Amino acid sequence: MFDIIGFGEAQLRLSTAHFQRLEQATSFDATIGGAELNVMVTARRLGLKTSYVTRLPRNPLGRMVQNKAREQGVDTSNIIWSDSDRLGVYFLEFGALPRPSAIIYDRTNSAIARIQPGMLDWDSIFSEVRAFHITGITPALSQGAMAVSTEAMRRAKEKGLQVSFDLNYRAKLWTQEQAKAGLSPLMEYVDLLITTEEDTARVFGIEGKDWSEVAHQLAATFGFKMVAITLRENVTVWRNNWTAIVLKDNRIYQDRTYDVEVVDRVGSGDAFAGGFLYSYLSGNDVQVALRYGNAAAVLKHSCTSDLAWFTLEEVEKLIQSQGDLRISR
Amino acid sequence: MFDIIGFGEAQLRLSTAHFQRLEQATSFDATIGGAELNVMVTARRLGLKTSYVTRLPRNPLGRMVQNKAREQGVDTSNIIWSDSDRLGVYFLEFGALPRPSAIIYDRTNSAIARIQPGMLDWDSIFSEVRAFHITGITPALSQGAMAVSTEAMRRAKEKGLQVSFDLNYRAKLWTQEQAKAGLSPLMEYVDLLITTEEDTARVFGIEGKDWSEVAHQLAATFGFKMVAITLRENVTVWRNNWTAIVLKDNRIYQDRTYDVEVVDRVGSGDAFAGGFLYSYLSGNDVQVALRYGNAAAVLKHSCTSDLAWFTLEEVEKLIQSQGDLRISR
Amino acid sequence: MFDIIGFGEAQLRLSTAHFQRLEQATSFDATIGGAELNVMVTARRLGLKTSYVTRLPRNPLGRMVQNKAREQGVDTSNIIWSDSDRLGVYFLEFGALPRPSAIIYDRTNSAIARIQPGMLDWDSIFSEVRAFHITGITPALSQGAMAVSTEAMRRAKEKGLQVSFDLNYRAKLWTQEQAKAGLSPLMEYVDLLITTEEDTARVFGIEGKDWSEVAHQLAATFGFKMVAITLRENVTVWRNNWTAIVLKDNRIYQDRTYDVEVVDRVGSGDAFAGGFLYSYLSGNDVQVALRYGNAAAVLKHSCTSDLAWFTLEEVEKLIQSQGDLRISR
Amino acid sequence: MFDIIGFGEAQLRLSTAHFQRLEQATSFDATIGGAELNVMVTARRLGLKTSYVTRLPRNPLGRMVQNKAREQGVDTSNIIWSDSDRLGVYFLEFGALPRPSAIIYDRTNSAIARIQPGMLDWDSIFSEVRAFHITGITPALSQGAMAVSTEAMRRAKEKGLQVSFDLNYRAKLWTQEQAKAGLSPLMEYVDLLITTEEDTARVFGIEGKDWSEVAHQLAATFGFKMVAITLRENVTVWRNNWTAIVLKDNRIYQDRTYDVEVVDRVGSGDAFAGGFLYSYLSGNDVQVALRYGNAAAVLKHSCTSDLAWFTLEEVEKLIQSQGDLRISR
Amino acid sequence: MFDIIGFGEAQLRLSTAHFQRLEQATSFDATIGGAELNVMVTARRLGLKTSYVTRLPRNPLGRMVQNKAREQGVDTSNIIWSDSDRLGVYFLEFGALPRPSAIIYDRTNSAIARIQPGMLDWDSIFSEVRAFHITGITPALSQGAMAVSTEAMRRAKEKGLQVSFDLNYRAKLWTQEQAKAGLSPLMEYVDLLITTEEDTARVFGIEGKDWSEVAHQLAATFGFKMVAITLRENVTVWRNNWTAIVLKDNRIYQDRTYDVEVVDRVGSGDAFAGGFLYSYLSGNDVQVALRYGNAAAVLKHSCTSDLAWFTLEEVEKLIQSQGDLRISR
Amino acid sequence: MFDIIGFGEAQLRLSTAHFQRLEQATSFDATIGGAELNVMVTARRLGLKTSYVTRLPRNPLGRMVQNKAREQGVDTSNIIWSDSDRLGVYFLEFGALPRPSAIIYDRTNSAIARIQPGMLDWDSIFSEVRAFHITGITPALSQGAMAVSTEAMRRAKEKGLQVSFDLNYRAKLWTQEQAKAGLSPLMEYVDLLITTEEDTARVFGIEGKDWSEVAHQLAATFGFKMVAITLRENVTVWRNNWTAIVLKDNRIYQDRTYDVEVVDRVGSGDAFAGGFLYSYLSGNDVQVALRYGNAAAVLKHSCTSDLAWFTLEEVEKLIQSQGDLRISR
Repeated sequence: MFDIIGFGEAQLRLSTAHFQRLEQATSFDATIGGAELNVMVTARRLGLKTSYVTRLPRNPLGRMVQNKAREQGVDTSNIIWSDSDRLGVYFLEFGALPRPSAIIYDRTNSAIARIQPGMLDWDSIFSEVRAFHITGITPALSQGAMAVSTEAMRRAKEKGLQVSFDLNYRAKLWTQEQAKAGLSPLMEYVDLLITTEEDTARVFGIEGKDWSEVAHQLAATFGFKMVAITLRENVTVWRNNWTAIVLKDNRIYQDRTYDVEVVDRVGSGDAFAGGFLYSYLSGNDVQVALRYGNAAAVLKHSCTSDLAWFTLEEVEKLIQSQGDLRISR
Repeated sequence: MFDIIGFGEAQLRLSTAHFQRLEQATSFDATIGGAELNVMVTARRLGLKTSYVTRLPRNPLGRMVQNKAREQGVDTSNIIWSDSDRLGVYFLEFGALPRPSAIIYDRTNSAIARIQPGMLDWDSIFSEVRAFHITGITPALSQGAMAVSTEAMRRAKEKGLQVSFDLNYRAKLWTQEQAKAGLSPLMEYVDLLITTEEDTARVFGIEGKDWSEVAHQLAATFGFKMVAITLRENVTVWRNNWTAIVLKDNRIYQDRTYDVEVVDRVGSGDAFAGGFLYSYLSGNDVQVALRYGNAAAVLKHSCTSDLAWFTLEEVEKLIQSQGDLRISR
Repeated sequence: MFDIIGFGEAQLRLSTAHFQRLEQATSFDATIGGAELNVMVTARRLGLKTSYVTRLPRNPLGRMVQNKAREQGVDTSNIIWSDSDRLGVYFLEFGALPRPSAIIYDRTNSAIARIQPGMLDWDSIFSEVRAFHITGITPALSQGAMAVSTEAMRRAKEKGLQVSFDLNYRAKLWTQEQAKAGLSPLMEYVDLLITTEEDTARVFGIEGKDWSEVAHQLAATFGFKMVAITLRENVTVWRNNWTAIVLKDNRIYQDRTYDVEVVDRVGSGDAFAGGFLYSYLSGNDVQVALRYGNAAAVLKHSCTSDLAWFTLEEVEKLIQSQGDLRISR
Repeated sequence: MFDIIGFGEAQLRLSTAHFQRLEQATSFDATIGGAELNVMVTARRLGLKTSYVTRLPRNPLGRMVQNKAREQGVDTSNIIWSDSDRLGVYFLEFGALPRPSAIIYDRTNSAIARIQPGMLDWDSIFSEVRAFHITGITPALSQGAMAVSTEAMRRAKEKGLQVSFDLNYRAKLWTQEQAKAGLSPLMEYVDLLITTEEDTARVFGIEGKDWSEVAHQLAATFGFKMVAITLRENVTVWRNNWTAIVLKDNRIYQDRTYDVEVVDRVGSGDAFAGGFLYSYLSGNDVQVALRYGNAAAVLKHSCTSDLAWFTLEEVEKLIQSQGDLRISR
Repeated sequence: MFDIIGFGEAQLRLSTAHFQRLEQATSFDATIGGAELNVMVTARRLGLKTSYVTRLPRNPLGRMVQNKAREQGVDTSNIIWSDSDRLGVYFLEFGALPRPSAIIYDRTNSAIARIQPGMLDWDSIFSEVRAFHITGITPALSQGAMAVSTEAMRRAKEKGLQVSFDLNYRAKLWTQEQAKAGLSPLMEYVDLLITTEEDTARVFGIEGKDWSEVAHQLAATFGFKMVAITLRENVTVWRNNWTAIVLKDNRIYQDRTYDVEVVDRVGSGDAFAGGFLYSYLSGNDVQVALRYGNAAAVLKHSCTSDLAWFTLEEVEKLIQSQGDLRISR
Repeated sequence: MFDIIGFGEAQLRLSTAHFQRLEQATSFDATIGGAELNVMVTARRLGLKTSYVTRLPRNPLGRMVQNKAREQGVDTSNIIWSDSDRLGVYFLEFGALPRPSAIIYDRTNSAIARIQPGMLDWDSIFSEVRAFHITGITPALSQGAMAVSTEAMRRAKEKGLQVSFDLNYRAKLWTQEQAKAGLSPLMEYVDLLITTEEDTARVFGIEGKDWSEVAHQLAATFGFKMVAITLRENVTVWRNNWTAIVLKDNRIYQDRTYDVEVVDRVGSGDAFAGGFLYSYLSGNDVQVALRYGNAAAVLKHSCTSDLAWFTLEEVEKLIQSQGDLRISR
């Protein structure tokens, strides 16, 4: 019934406009984001049937999360509701060279962090589903979330779903040691590992002379079928370069590097995952899927909020483009 | 050094504009409010030297609370800082007949809720101070906050400060039974009890044939020197009537009833307390102080945010006014 | 699979803030609304499974309509897409006594107005559905829309769906004579007629000494099973009274009259229909359903945009309320 | 070439939104207003050819005044420019019962206040013009402005223009004694005096048992051909009653009293003048002109900014209306 | 009476702020723009007397177009009004590398598109005028607009006005073949052709080894007295290079290339035309006029909306500048 | 009691958003700024006890200045109040290459410009203070301000305070000749001169083959103990390079050059002064203080408003940074 299901935390994102610092804010723009939700949204916008699983408070803010997932066409029927807990919040301010953008998390004791094993019926959720996506954030939320993540990944693997895992190390949630101890046991369930430039070194201590070697080491260590490493160069805060590589069957796939003007980079890695998963699960080979992942990630940089406000047509136009920047009229 | 010190929780207030429901919000107006802070602000704007004590997270939101207190001239030198906790948040939406305005609290585990006895040095804080103000919200926040509230009230009483207490029952924090059990032991330290129409019945089960009788019963039960009861009539959501009575030395003081167009009623009771305390601590008698309290409360209804954005001159003009509504030019 | 399906036009609503006149606008608030969509949204929020059928342009504005329907949980799988047409727009400004609010329609040649018979497969759409809702706006849009409306109503009736019809006369779309000629033939398919105070007189020339008599005449003339007449008194622009009556089986049902502060009255009649249909299709009797319809209509007045941003819990609380306007905290 | 010319000061109006107090402002809405400009705008929107004369600084703010006059169709070819002076500013905050709206003027040393006799060539300006309008604000600005006002009024009278004068006493510009001394000598040039309820008493010390008597006294004292007195009742800040009377040829003309919801009352008196002058100069009798004046004043209350953002059609519809408050669609 | 008259379509421009995609818009900034209007505004701001001719709906949006033209000092007395048609709208979103900005037109059946020959009295309009400006958009709007454009250009030529024509090919209005067939017959009336880099190739199939050769071919093919080609390099979306060349009397004129940070590039070509025409019609030679055109175009990039919110002084300062970017204070 | 005291003018800053030109503004963002206030704010945020002295009007705008100083922790107890004067205003618009940002001052006759000798009791103000800061703006405001500045600097010197002076030449206040004549006599009281690249040449006519030579000449001419010269390169409007040098005891200190994306450069020089003074007065040597000054100046470019919305921790992180631009999470 669904191509892919994601499980994790969605938060109320409160960001300031016009580069205001958080401390001087007199208003906040309010949107919804969360790593796994963002992936489901991108994949859905491009064409997959996706469902998002989380635990939400039964109040206007919890409903807002459900609304915004539905608005994008993401199924929310597996979401469970809490009568007492809160929605996690994150505060975001945008920077300018040499000050990077910054985030304050206020996510402790959110409804999803207080999830307990047994609350979600994974057998039912995974019936008629082809793939499962989760990130390293979800197990980091709490012991309960770790337990439910493990439950979900094991069950997904047993049922033959493709399991993708974005490492997404969050230093504000746990130490590198805790992350290594917590995440290593989960790696046996993972088919596709997605990671950013820095996170493998920080979590698994895996480094190499180049990213290709890192990918090979990751695959060798954990037995992943595929490893994707996204590579960002922060030329300035408002100007980045972006590309990614994928390792599969001992072969490294590469794509061109994009020059990017940055409107809002939050969620770019998730857009990569969504674009790659869309294309790969649609039957394309890794080389093609990598192009979709990169184009989706790149377009995300020009969209405000965590979400992928673009279309399949735009992704494909970018893949084929020669850099035409005229206004279309 | 200070006329009065307040102790309690200040929160980030996130409200929607244009009567938007919280569920449909795309942005929030951000201000700071908190019952005891609001009282200190009103009293300071009218003329007292006031200080505000709380515990804040050492991050931009915590600094925002300190900033906004200082902006109003309220001393913040006694505030203590936490490196790990959060700032409480409340979400506010404005209603229209027949739907009242509504608040969602997200205050659990705030820095102030996680305060512990001994963190604040009340002897030092209360040196050279004449009065102490606290509300029934602070002890309701947590066991630690209850303990510190008790510590503070007892010490204030011992040092001969005038202790004022606004009952402020919050059903979202504890049950009526819990409130009664928790607050009753504190009443022995209270000189001036301030309460709204409903709260004495809900917390102490004290009711009477009229508000005068209720005030007498309260004084008789707990031995308060003064009891103030604020009386609001919700004609509609946008139109209220407001007055208050005060009992002192077995005598009931009354004031005129004001007809009020409501811009933002949050903090009106605190403005009453601030206006009354300003006048009373400035040496006026109860009848005069009651007039200042009512005028301050009434003006608060026309100010956005929890705070009393008006001046002593405006309060005194209203007290003497014959209802001139011409634009001053 | 669905309790009820609605068919009609949804528009981009561009309204000014702060009572600005349209002529002086420097920005517009953008939301989505449409009579049948509004009904589906209310019914869905209260508990029915609803689906909305329309024809949209394949561009960001068309997608916005689908998004906003999905956001509310309304199914959009039956929507059809046009590669060349436009989305209808309406411009709205809010008034103040003695100037009423006003609307400019810019809806000619919208994708839905250019629909043609055969574009929608009603047999498929109506499989596993219990009810169908349409208003007098849809057939007024164009000859094609009239033809498809007729097609839909006839097929709904044949398949035994309950057909509800909100008369909704729009003088800017057609004359009273055209409306009478166009709508009269459709009345044979209607089970429940919903109409405002003025519209029966304007469209069918039916008047009476009171609304009860009008309802009886309507039922007698067209053979409706039920007739609902909503009754609004414009005390001022910002203050209205609201109630409604329903006729069924020769009996008139009445409910209390609500005193309403008006934030945004657009869509109130649709909220009535949605509330009534929710309750009636959930198995309640007419008297109960009338209460749900009125409470939903009344709450709509306090919500910005055309849509019913409230919950079943709020509707039921209002029905049982004694007018408590305290802030819930 | 013009029906009427106005002369005076236009200011940058900086007002807060959402009832924010000036002291708490983080942004201001910026518009342009000025008594004589407002009158020229209303008269122009209804149908007269109008021109506005002032002195402006040659900077973006000065150009903004010219732009906004031109936007409304008011001629600006007689405006003169200063290379060194400033534009006057006024700050406006909106009140709510029992606190009235308030204005801070920051108009000292504006370009128009620094005007000197001879800077404007009244002979040229008054060629082919039928009427001249000025208010008691212009001569109050400075000695230079008083001299130029006198120059203009005398010359207008000599050339046979109808001279209208709105008393508009501004306590923040001069005392009642100064106003009396300054304005009395100008009255000999005035054909039509327009005044509010309070101003004749404050400036000329003329009071009576009713407004009719006051009008008669004014005419008797100064020899005005016509006297118009506008009558406002401040029921609350957001709800006013409005009407006016006119005395001509010893006869009092009256009109109905309007019940008004107040969005922005600044400029209502100017709209009255503009509506009355439009109708009277178009050849209607006083009774008709009074109706246009009142309807224009009343509609102004529902328009944000000082200006009359309505049409002749709307004025005439209101005059003929029976109070229909349905949304026109 | 006028130096130059422009004829074409002005639209309501609805753009999103903060780089929001159109699909996610919750509000739109509203301004007015249109190729020929933009040219008249620039020329007027720099010093010419200009008039703008179009056909508008008699509603608030049509009045908004007239207002905004008048605000800039552009005469609107030749505008004609429709009681039934609509104003064209365009939706604009701003991009970031590698996604260009994008426009959705919603202009079909606008009042100007429904114009018919005879509605405008060109003999009267062209009395006492020196020049006429039109673009390739106007004849593309409809058959009626093509007929009236032809009518106007022929009559202008006959009366000896200088006719300037900006090719402005719009792929969303017609195909390249349609444009060639439609525009070629009009070229005989054109004195000055203005075109962008791409449009001559797309419409006339004229290409060359460099822009100089293209200009020569255009002049040779159609007999233009002058040809101006504007040359933009999209370094990124937010950074462009700009210059232009002009051919006259077989000689190519060039100017420096400007490095431009892009705030809003819509209307830059029109600003070039306005700046060039201002200078040329003021009696300057082509080399000087080219400098004014380029400086105006370049300054336009830093102004929001389609319009040229700058002054002659700023244009001349830029022409003479050495790149001083200090804040003037 | 204070580490440093600043004396000067604070203004209401009215800036447009989204790069709007001032002439097209429909709203202004309102903040408070002033050279000496900005320095006190930066120094306070980093850790000094600072006090700000000025003269303000007793109205909401004057209170706003006091509020915003207090909000930052700056003492305001020495401020004096005027019952009749105004607050200075400056209007700011942001530019884009090749158009620089621009400011309109409207500061004539402000309360501080109308200060007179004797109004401030410098003996009392300077009791228990270590340093005094003033800029070349304050004496330029008026004769009275010049007299009070001289009074203050002489007294500060006499009392042994460290006197720092930022040259800050403002061409809109006085000519270069006037500045030279006015400022030269004050230089004898100055310990630390801070100047921008251009100002020494413009005011003192001091130029050299490099900045080091200029610093030496300044020290030689006036006997300053220290000279700081800030060096900005305007690569574009949105991209600057920044560094500074300091001369002390015949030695030149240098620091690295920062590459800066510019959000709002107003107040950067003041942030340099604040950062340098903080560090130097905290006991660090010149080399260290220079680093703090530069880092503070650089961070200021990324903060909206004149003020230094950053922390000591951020300054120190930047000083030690290797340019990590990842989002901290």
